[in-house]
Amino acid sequence: MSRCYNFCAGPAALPESVLETARDDMLDWHGRGLSLMEMSHRSPEVVGVAQHAEQTLRQLLGISEDYAVLFLQGGASTQFAAVPLNLLGERGRADYVNTGQWSKKAIAEGRRFGEVNVVASSEDTNFSTIPEFGSWQLSSDAAYLHYTPNETIGGVEFFWTPEVAAPLVVDMSSTILSRPINVDDYGVIYAGAQKNIGPAGLTLVIARRDLLGQASAACPTMLDWKVAADNDSMYNTPPTFALYLAALVFDWLVELGGLQAMAEINRRKAARLYAAIDGSSFYANPVEPASRSLMNVPFTLADPELDKLFLQESEKAGLLNLKGHRSVGGMRASLYNAVGEEAVDALIAFMRDFEQRRA
Amino acid sequence: MSRCYNFCAGPAALPESVLETARDDMLDWHGRGLSLMEMSHRSPEVVGVAQHAEQTLRQLLGISEDYAVLFLQGGASTQFAAVPLNLLGERGRADYVNTGQWSKKAIAEGRRFGEVNVVASSEDTNFSTIPEFGSWQLSSDAAYLHYTPNETIGGVEFFWTPEVAAPLVVDMSSTILSRPINVDDYGVIYAGAQKNIGPAGLTLVIARRDLLGQASAACPTMLDWKVAADNDSMYNTPPTFALYLAALVFDWLVELGGLQAMAEINRRKAARLYAAIDGSSFYANPVEPASRSLMNVPFTLADPELDKLFLQESEKAGLLNLKGHRSVGGMRASLYNAVGEEAVDALIAFMRDFEQRRA
Repeated sequence: MSRCYNFCAGPAALPESVLETARDDMLDWHGRGLSLMEMSHRSPEVVGVAQHAEQTLRQLLGISEDYAVLFLQGGASTQFAAVPLNLLGERGRADYVNTGQWSKKAIAEGRRFGEVNVVASSEDTNFSTIPEFGSWQLSSDAAYLHYTPNETIGGVEFFWTPEVAAPLVVDMSSTILSRPINVDDYGVIYAGAQKNIGPAGLTLVIARRDLLGQASAACPTMLDWKVAADNDSMYNTPPTFALYLAALVFDWLVELGGLQAMAEINRRKAARLYAAIDGSSFYANPVEPASRSLMNVPFTLADPELDKLFLQESEKAGLLNLKGHRSVGGMRASLYNAVGEEAVDALIAFMRDFEQRRA
Repeated sequence: MSRCYNFCAGPAALPESVLETARDDMLDWHGRGLSLMEMSHRSPEVVGVAQHAEQTLRQLLGISEDYAVLFLQGGASTQFAAVPLNLLGERGRADYVNTGQWSKKAIAEGRRFGEVNVVASSEDTNFSTIPEFGSWQLSSDAAYLHYTPNETIGGVEFFWTPEVAAPLVVDMSSTILSRPINVDDYGVIYAGAQKNIGPAGLTLVIARRDLLGQASAACPTMLDWKVAADNDSMYNTPPTFALYLAALVFDWLVELGGLQAMAEINRRKAARLYAAIDGSSFYANPVEPASRSLMNVPFTLADPELDKLFLQESEKAGLLNLKGHRSVGGMRASLYNAVGEEAVDALIAFMRDFEQRRA
């Protein structure tokens, strides 16, 4: 068996030690004679795993008791509906920032449930920038302001937090746990698990408790955050195995030194790759330097005719999933937490070699 | 490592060979150098697994192309909302049968979106019967008739199919794949995976295609079956690892001889356990014999003071999760597909021994 380097944008690489534990636990979790996924979600074992996951996550992100931590299903796309259904309330309108494909999906779904005001958009730059805060056309009575701190396809990331009157609601699917954040800055943080948390099929929502309890009459019970909070995310059977894997990932982050240590590693990884791209006339990244994502690095080859060969050769070299998103083309290297520095070094070495041979 | 016998009502036992394959594939799926859960849902590998799962399921259940097969998230509880949101249409009303706790949950959620007519209820018998079809007060204009073919808590199961004008919509979470069914009898079949399909976190919907496309304006996109069907259940990232495990379970069923063979085994298991209960004056099952569930067998001890001891001793004997549901008490043995005949024999032997020592 040989493990490859995995630059997939999601579902993404998981820490090898997490997979090893999952493998070793598979038929007999902690000597109980069962797989964890064969146990009742009401059992002390599974409840213990869920509580441990929540406590470790609270520790990692510094989440106070003012916030509920919910482990749900359905991905961020389900939250695109849950956000307006839980938060629009009587105001009926919300502000959204459009910085890429994920923003657009959230906006489209939001419009189905209320009035959406797009305060700013970078679509005219093909989503290669973040609109300057001074240009945002904020509403005076928005129930919330929604934005996407990292866009996986365009590869742009916010390194600042907007200061507005309305609660901030953010889709952090592709940046959560990559570095410390100040949770108190936000009203609601949500994230699909399949980048930095665990396997696909788990969705995290961190919601300020004072925002709960105003779901609209049209909100399905399973999308009502208050119901989930009141039932410790076990109103019905949660995805127990995905939750267990997430708990292992959180433990791995703690062992590694927490989010400050993770952020240092992530900064080094991205800095090295962007430097390699910028130091070459063969590779290019279109994003304005101040908004370049630490997690998703799209890049193009000077000659797109070589794209196919680059992908074939990189795959042979054990560097997988470098193809750019179908809506953009070119290449994309996703550098989520579980992608090690040695993977980035291997990618850079391959890129240099390819350039020398083919440019 | 020693595996125990697992009578959990859900998440339930999985075939040992499935867990072994999952263990062996964990770090390196089919020599690809990655875990399947680290691969893009758009990769040929994951798309192949999803297609294989669908094809094998179609083969097992005899599902024609008139039906869409959807792999979703959120459990049956999410479908309690999705059903009315997708099907109520302009009629705005539906018929529901109340045969237990799961029926009641579906009814309560249905009422949030339209007019619900409860055509029959067995609540007056403490859900120990199925109301005779002749007594059902059917509406003339129901958009559908909803019922729960098997109730896990009461332990009652339908062994007949109602013949009504409206499409039948059924929550088959706890009986699907336990025996052959005629899919053409139903408009929509839905099921949480965590009993006979795979791990928690995956939800199956089998929907007649002519019923798709009438979702209400209030239906979140992620709950719209038409959207899921049009996108091969990949409108967003599906729970890929749960889907892979389900595909392995479907393969296991095929190898075992399909649902006819599974049904024979399940019939023998249930017959032996009910015979042991009925042949004793120490154990009792409250359900009318014609409606006794093949999947969930609740039973009481003549002296409830002995419940705790029974549970302690059975657990020591490697017979796990026999405690009855918190709303009912007593014991419950769930005999899902992956619970082998040897597990039932071991339970019966333990019950006889306990009775001789304690009665």
